[in-house]
Amino acid sequence: MKYDKFFSADVGSFLRSPVREIFKKVDLASIYSFAGGYPDAATFPIDDVRRISAQVLDRYGAKALQYGATQGLTELREVISARYGVPMERVQITTSSQQGIDVCTRVLADPGDVVLTSAPTYLGALQSFRSYRADVRTFEDIGDDFSKVKFCYVIPDFQNPSGETMDLEQREALVALAREHDFLIVEDCPYRELRYSGEPVPTIYSLAPERTLHLGTFSKVFAPGFRLGWMFGPEELLDKVYVCKQSLDLCPPILDQYLAAEFMGSGALDANLQKSIALYRGKRDKMLALLEKYMPAGVSWTHPEGGLFLFVTLPEGFDTVALYDRALTAGVAYVAGSFFYPDGSHRNTMRLNFSFLDTARMEPGIRLLADVIRSASPL
Amino acid sequence: MKYDKFFSADVGSFLRSPVREIFKKVDLASIYSFAGGYPDAATFPIDDVRRISAQVLDRYGAKALQYGATQGLTELREVISARYGVPMERVQITTSSQQGIDVCTRVLADPGDVVLTSAPTYLGALQSFRSYRADVRTFEDIGDDFSKVKFCYVIPDFQNPSGETMDLEQREALVALAREHDFLIVEDCPYRELRYSGEPVPTIYSLAPERTLHLGTFSKVFAPGFRLGWMFGPEELLDKVYVCKQSLDLCPPILDQYLAAEFMGSGALDANLQKSIALYRGKRDKMLALLEKYMPAGVSWTHPEGGLFLFVTLPEGFDTVALYDRALTAGVAYVAGSFFYPDGSHRNTMRLNFSFLDTARMEPGIRLLADVIRSASPL
Repeated sequence: MKYDKFFSADVGSFLRSPVREIFKKVDLASIYSFAGGYPDAATFPIDDVRRISAQVLDRYGAKALQYGATQGLTELREVISARYGVPMERVQITTSSQQGIDVCTRVLADPGDVVLTSAPTYLGALQSFRSYRADVRTFEDIGDDFSKVKFCYVIPDFQNPSGETMDLEQREALVALAREHDFLIVEDCPYRELRYSGEPVPTIYSLAPERTLHLGTFSKVFAPGFRLGWMFGPEELLDKVYVCKQSLDLCPPILDQYLAAEFMGSGALDANLQKSIALYRGKRDKMLALLEKYMPAGVSWTHPEGGLFLFVTLPEGFDTVALYDRALTAGVAYVAGSFFYPDGSHRNTMRLNFSFLDTARMEPGIRLLADVIRSASPL
Repeated sequence: MKYDKFFSADVGSFLRSPVREIFKKVDLASIYSFAGGYPDAATFPIDDVRRISAQVLDRYGAKALQYGATQGLTELREVISARYGVPMERVQITTSSQQGIDVCTRVLADPGDVVLTSAPTYLGALQSFRSYRADVRTFEDIGDDFSKVKFCYVIPDFQNPSGETMDLEQREALVALAREHDFLIVEDCPYRELRYSGEPVPTIYSLAPERTLHLGTFSKVFAPGFRLGWMFGPEELLDKVYVCKQSLDLCPPILDQYLAAEFMGSGALDANLQKSIALYRGKRDKMLALLEKYMPAGVSWTHPEGGLFLFVTLPEGFDTVALYDRALTAGVAYVAGSFFYPDGSHRNTMRLNFSFLDTARMEPGIRLLADVIRSASPL
């Protein structure tokens, strides 16, 4: 039976994640992987989860297993509201911040509408934008015509994949641009709490609460398996997100929301975050030192103040897509940087994750990667 | 600031759930509610969840909190595959079967494509169809022109809201129709395992596995709070669902999937299901007896063999939408039947849920409802 005739027009624009395809091909535990965006499992508060699960079931009983409100659990919205100083009415819980990105795109973008993004940018966001047939444009190629821009998508803190952080001037300039041309801003902040050096910069949401949808997540400060995130935004926008979410999945998972509320509200999150930051700071520093030690001349990389990634640029003419199979055979994995560019350019770049691999395995991994690069010639 | 200009065309077709709006207006615990579709909290296996949570965290540790595969956890797909005799490759885990409905619509229907459905039908499905601007048609109004039908949506077992079950002949006729006119079938089976009398009828999926997407859920056999469902279907269709799900939410919640896998795989689900069925059978019988006892002449209702709902028809001219506020003031809630009709017709009908309310509170509730009906005149 042929199925092609049944598919909606959107399906033709679906973008398969090359990252997830990499994971299918290879057992990451068997190689030195700088490819994924996985947190270090050592940061997962298993004992807290065990303790809090029992508490929540005792305290809330059947309520923790029943259907719940589409906006999310009041208890969870309260602790998020208190932590970030955003009124309850402006807090919507999402079933992952990936859902946050997707639902924003759904509610805002028609086919052909422009979504403005930095380049490189998060692949999962590109997947969402493409899947709704939005016209994805970068700051480099937008020119002067902002008339079809519905929203701009940015990850201002320790960006995925670049590791770079927008300073206050850049944030203010973006807000001024958005106000001038009347477009919205989707601010994705999965890594914001993972700062290892430097000073925090105000969120874009705090600079322009009237036109910013801010996305947060528990994935990097609790555990990604819970698939819980949140969204701040103007009530008029959140109302549409709310109605959309009714038909998307009715409500976020309830027991998980109670766990997250208790984890955040009790102070356990902050205690765990301190440990995570210390661990990741060490890993970042180690990674930077190893790159310095092993990478051949002409290779450069970013110096992130937080997050999980840094971005490496090889000399012009290198092709990290072509190099990938050789790297995998040698036993080391990365993600080709061109996957993060809407136009597939910058084939001489790669994203390296420094959160997942055990510290002890970083040195042989980077040495191997440097060897692979050294053995390759520019095309 | 005005936001209207930012919304996508889909937003104009979003349908706000009248059921969820009812829940916002009133504390259901304070009235006799036959309105929701909530399971009886007494069926929630809290002790199992407590025990299994501890087991899963001990056994899988950090794996239970990390990101996972977009198709869903292998362990969960295995037990579902074994229970229902469907090969693993044809099993996709969904973050609720509401997501299953939504993603099917997303992948199959363009604006103007016809989605064929029985009437009345599940409100959450109507919300999804409308949100993608599909042309929702019923068997009554489709006529002879099936050319634009992408898929037919049915709930063959103990339908929501009617409580009715399609017999084998009806299922075979639908399959023949789908084959003749080459459309797909989305078979939604949330209540299938909740049968209180009569004999099971083969699933439509078993009759036409080449063109059926079958949706199942843990909401009624485990607990709705987990927001976990599954989908069976041809691999070519599931592949598009899989890519779509990458950008929707990456993967279903992991810890919850381990809990569900253990609950189903260990036999705890079947033990709990036996108790749920016994409880609900009693509630259904009681409900039917109470309607018989209290309802005025001219009122009729369905006699479901399972599920959570029955459907009441008042004499022609009654208007359950208009009657609703009076019922609420009197202290009893239902859902007006017309909400389940794509064209808002059948205003003399109502859906009654018999799973949620405590057995002891059913009699005063139905007596009150009968009084409200008796006190009303047809328009």
